[in-house]
Amino acid sequence: MSAPTLATFRPQDHEYAFHFDGQREPYAELVAGALAMVYTEDCFGGAVLSVDDLPSQVCEWPFLNPVTGPFHIRGADIGDTLAVHIVAITPARDHGFSSTFPHFGLLTSTAATASLQPPLEERVWRYTIDEAAGVVRFHARSSDLGVDLPLEPMIGTIGVAPAGGETHSTLTAGEWGGNLDTRLIRAGTTVFLPVNVPGAMLALGDGHARQGDGEICGVAVEVPMVVTLLVEVIKGATIGRIRLETDATIVTLASGRPLEDPVRASQHDLVLWVADLTGLDLLDAYQLVSQGGGAVVGNVVDPAYTMAAVMPKRHLPAAAYYGGVHQRLRSTATQ
Amino acid sequence: MSAPTLATFRPQDHEYAFHFDGQREPYAELVAGALAMVYTEDCFGGAVLSVDDLPSQVCEWPFLNPVTGPFHIRGADIGDTLAVHIVAITPARDHGFSSTFPHFGLLTSTAATASLQPPLEERVWRYTIDEAAGVVRFHARSSDLGVDLPLEPMIGTIGVAPAGGETHSTLTAGEWGGNLDTRLIRAGTTVFLPVNVPGAMLALGDGHARQGDGEICGVAVEVPMVVTLLVEVIKGATIGRIRLETDATIVTLASGRPLEDPVRASQHDLVLWVADLTGLDLLDAYQLVSQGGGAVVGNVVDPAYTMAAVMPKRHLPAAAYYGGVHQRLRSTATQ
Amino acid sequence: MSAPTLATFRPQDHEYAFHFDGQREPYAELVAGALAMVYTEDCFGGAVLSVDDLPSQVCEWPFLNPVTGPFHIRGADIGDTLAVHIVAITPARDHGFSSTFPHFGLLTSTAATASLQPPLEERVWRYTIDEAAGVVRFHARSSDLGVDLPLEPMIGTIGVAPAGGETHSTLTAGEWGGNLDTRLIRAGTTVFLPVNVPGAMLALGDGHARQGDGEICGVAVEVPMVVTLLVEVIKGATIGRIRLETDATIVTLASGRPLEDPVRASQHDLVLWVADLTGLDLLDAYQLVSQGGGAVVGNVVDPAYTMAAVMPKRHLPAAAYYGGVHQRLRSTATQ
Amino acid sequence: MSAPTLATFRPQDHEYAFHFDGQREPYAELVAGALAMVYTEDCFGGAVLSVDDLPSQVCEWPFLNPVTGPFHIRGADIGDTLAVHIVAITPARDHGFSSTFPHFGLLTSTAATASLQPPLEERVWRYTIDEAAGVVRFHARSSDLGVDLPLEPMIGTIGVAPAGGETHSTLTAGEWGGNLDTRLIRAGTTVFLPVNVPGAMLALGDGHARQGDGEICGVAVEVPMVVTLLVEVIKGATIGRIRLETDATIVTLASGRPLEDPVRASQHDLVLWVADLTGLDLLDAYQLVSQGGGAVVGNVVDPAYTMAAVMPKRHLPAAAYYGGVHQRLRSTATQ
Repeated sequence: MSAPTLATFRPQDHEYAFHFDGQREPYAELVAGALAMVYTEDCFGGAVLSVDDLPSQVCEWPFLNPVTGPFHIRGADIGDTLAVHIVAITPARDHGFSSTFPHFGLLTSTAATASLQPPLEERVWRYTIDEAAGVVRFHARSSDLGVDLPLEPMIGTIGVAPAGGETHSTLTAGEWGGNLDTRLIRAGTTVFLPVNVPGAMLALGDGHARQGDGEICGVAVEVPMVVTLLVEVIKGATIGRIRLETDATIVTLASGRPLEDPVRASQHDLVLWVADLTGLDLLDAYQLVSQGGGAVVGNVVDPAYTMAAVMPKRHLPAAAYYGGVHQRLRSTATQ
Repeated sequence: MSAPTLATFRPQDHEYAFHFDGQREPYAELVAGALAMVYTEDCFGGAVLSVDDLPSQVCEWPFLNPVTGPFHIRGADIGDTLAVHIVAITPARDHGFSSTFPHFGLLTSTAATASLQPPLEERVWRYTIDEAAGVVRFHARSSDLGVDLPLEPMIGTIGVAPAGGETHSTLTAGEWGGNLDTRLIRAGTTVFLPVNVPGAMLALGDGHARQGDGEICGVAVEVPMVVTLLVEVIKGATIGRIRLETDATIVTLASGRPLEDPVRASQHDLVLWVADLTGLDLLDAYQLVSQGGGAVVGNVVDPAYTMAAVMPKRHLPAAAYYGGVHQRLRSTATQ
Repeated sequence: MSAPTLATFRPQDHEYAFHFDGQREPYAELVAGALAMVYTEDCFGGAVLSVDDLPSQVCEWPFLNPVTGPFHIRGADIGDTLAVHIVAITPARDHGFSSTFPHFGLLTSTAATASLQPPLEERVWRYTIDEAAGVVRFHARSSDLGVDLPLEPMIGTIGVAPAGGETHSTLTAGEWGGNLDTRLIRAGTTVFLPVNVPGAMLALGDGHARQGDGEICGVAVEVPMVVTLLVEVIKGATIGRIRLETDATIVTLASGRPLEDPVRASQHDLVLWVADLTGLDLLDAYQLVSQGGGAVVGNVVDPAYTMAAVMPKRHLPAAAYYGGVHQRLRSTATQ
Repeated sequence: MSAPTLATFRPQDHEYAFHFDGQREPYAELVAGALAMVYTEDCFGGAVLSVDDLPSQVCEWPFLNPVTGPFHIRGADIGDTLAVHIVAITPARDHGFSSTFPHFGLLTSTAATASLQPPLEERVWRYTIDEAAGVVRFHARSSDLGVDLPLEPMIGTIGVAPAGGETHSTLTAGEWGGNLDTRLIRAGTTVFLPVNVPGAMLALGDGHARQGDGEICGVAVEVPMVVTLLVEVIKGATIGRIRLETDATIVTLASGRPLEDPVRASQHDLVLWVADLTGLDLLDAYQLVSQGGGAVVGNVVDPAYTMAAVMPKRHLPAAAYYGGVHQRLRSTATQ
């Protein structure tokens, strides 16, 4: 097997997308087996350059959370499943920004969870990124405290054209993916997405140098990224929800409100998947997931919250999920 | 420093409690510095002996989820904080049981989340526990599949007398603790509880050989336990929510519905705690928790769901929380 | 039939209860067929005397929301249903008070729905009550505006001893009743409550001169009341949830969070009741309730929100619910 | 003033829309002051013709809930408000249909509130409509019972092109309107909608002969309608949420999950509106709404639940809301 070819994609400023939209012209095409290096802008569209740039002043809705794409995937037809293997996520800058944002985040009232209280102060933090040391450095604004946190790059937003002719902002999430903001989409992860329109129309962005579970202030350590990925189309395999696979786990995602609902929907899909992989009936699979599974909080701040249900592969009989596509992509990636 | 004395407590059948209740006579007294070995019954009160014993038939509400206690803690006064260090949790039996239960659990309608659908099948699973191997073995009912899961003993229910003269079933949870069902209460954890009545009136039970996040079918691998613990009273320190400390983390707990609410309340308390420990203002502490913290799902099945907010100590300046009580108890325990 | 006898009950200051509690000594006894006039204190325990008395300063938790009782109902045994007919609710004062309260209410963050925002201003409003005119007069604090609102006296809190040995604060609600805060409990309503302990142990209080749906600021127009009531025990009739009957409607109540859950539980109980009354199967009853029923918001501010499901009797075949107890009590009351 | 002109609009089968979409070509144009009679198809697209036509078999997602439109409103520019006065809603057929639908509705698990339980039976009901008598007749399927319910025609779905370039299914709701399913949008109501794109792009459908609060089985008495309406553009008036006005009330709407959130958001908007109309400060307006306002359940079954906050005009000083547009349209309509 020969080494994969490599294509690079960096949009012009006007080429970023702000929706998952099956009507939009493709930005480029991806083919199975070819490595793609995709530049993603940060969620502020690059407009925050210092702690003095308040997002509510330098950004303008709906021009938030730009994604790179949509990529037309050659050979992807309605009813297929798209596998996207994340080979690498590399910060394109030596610093990132986070912030509070008026009436956005977990520990504030919002337009949806409305109150008569004034918003919290809007404040920006600049983080130093030391890629060699694997460190993201927090600098307090109210004191001299600095804290080194592990660099754990992830993709906050990834998705395809929604089904049913809908067009969704990149700020929300659903069965098409979107603003999932889960730490589980990182290098080494394969993301399975439904193909709802010809070509799937994949787009991604919103790289985070790191975030805590829940992304509670609403904004992670936001940074432009270079994302290396490999795609493959699984013909004739239809999925209802986003699924992930890593070397160690299988994962199902769901988004919605209240938070127990995406817990229900993600665990439900994991039970179905485990039953499928093991031949257990639904009640036995429910039991095995109950004792052996995990529930990981993605975000609790976006219009639809995201939860992940996780099963370690070591708790399952050996199986090649989706025909071993993860292992195949992983192996291609590491050539 | 001399080795701690050791007292053992195993209630008679009629001595178990089913409430957290400040009016109940103490079962026994505990004193700071003395190791206590406490026998806890399983959540079925020992009534499930085989996979043929359906809980809805062999158990009778409200005689579910028995706890051992209440223990009067010498010297604990209203407004103090009680520190309970879990030294060890050892299964008292070589097998445990789990089950579904009619209209209880995450993936079913319930009395609260009512539907017109009939209940799922009630089914019992018997797990083999191999303590030496550190394994809990799942045996499927619908096939011959067996799966070894890690033995990870934990205490599902621990609490004190509620404030304000309330008496709560051991099936629910609140600021007094109760049926928290979080994997984070295990050997090595120190649990901080409010003292709402003289003597605090500590009680505990509901040992789990293991559970997945969320305890989604409603029932973990239930087993009687011998719990070894050490207590200490922190005079004059008042806490609003249950907090935990391990060698590596500080943790805050909250219970409620919908699930985003205990996420909010636990993260809020963690922000307050981090601000207190670091001298950061609230917004800086919010930011640090947002990027460095965790959110761990306890249960999503009990009357009040429980969430934990977690901060690794390595992300905080060195500090002795609550006067170093955790390290002191840890050190006493390991003598 | 002779006119009912009349007994009056006005507790001493120290005799009010702050819990629904099966262990508490009865305050008095009620017998079927005898009119009782019960004085209830306001939710502030009478401590707010002017707009300068801020509740957070003049009241002390848990001494909030006093109820009069518990009344031991002669002949009420476990498994029976208690019918309480509200004959009249009369303000005992010519003015009432409302207020905001720090971190309590719908349009503010709370301890449960926590945020880092400071509380709203605490402010007290004094309402003039003109019983003859049937008017409650709002006086703005920020301007001279005055608004006449209809006087619509109701009982905010009514309940019995909880099942299962629990003791609940009068601030919350559940299957035992409690702080329901629904406008539907007013003169002319019969309230059906479960009998969980011998004598039922009825208690009531928290009279409102009026409130809007949801009681959104957390506090209605609070006023001491004289409540005239008649009780009857329905032997051997067991109910799972609080039900109401008026001349025109049957109503089921449920309390919980999130708000869709008490909607589900109350509508579910109404479907069961309608099926029972009409002989329809569950799906037909579901359909009839879907097109002919109502959903009325009680409160969305207490620890458990309360919803009512309502079916007009004109949409049902003629029936004597619970053996015609409502009509019988109504007739007795109007003699 | 001369009588308004009258235009009629009945789409061809292929002309119905299934999205609120600013990119779609207008179906027709409306001008202020001209009466429009708009034919709307039922939510099944006319495919249910008898109780044997199960919706899950005769309908195909996403071709559900067709709307008539979009209508380009002459002179409507971004930032204006569109006023749509509902003059009349007349059933276009002498019968309607309701049904259950698999895993849809309040009293069943759904894809969002997932469970492992099988769906309820799918069943269709045919209702007889007697317009002269003002009656919708329920015919039970499990018995001979028939019940006359009041004919109360309403529009379930009405909205404009969403802001921010989004395209939403007609099955959901948001700030653009959509599948609101509230009984308050009926003859005599003026609906105020934001203008997010040039021409506003109004569309409507989903007529109900009647529904109960919450539309709990998920489907009302669905019937094609002839809707007579009048529009007017309020230049330069920007609204954040849908508002309604009737002769007797002002109303604010909000949609979302969990249900307490649209309660919060609708009551919040009502407080802002009352403050604006009365000159009260926010806290006084909050108080007045708390005691004088209503909360009406729209639906608790669609992807976003809808709640209405209602203030009777008699509780407010005399005012001409939005320059008296409701009265003006009302007066035009009744010429």
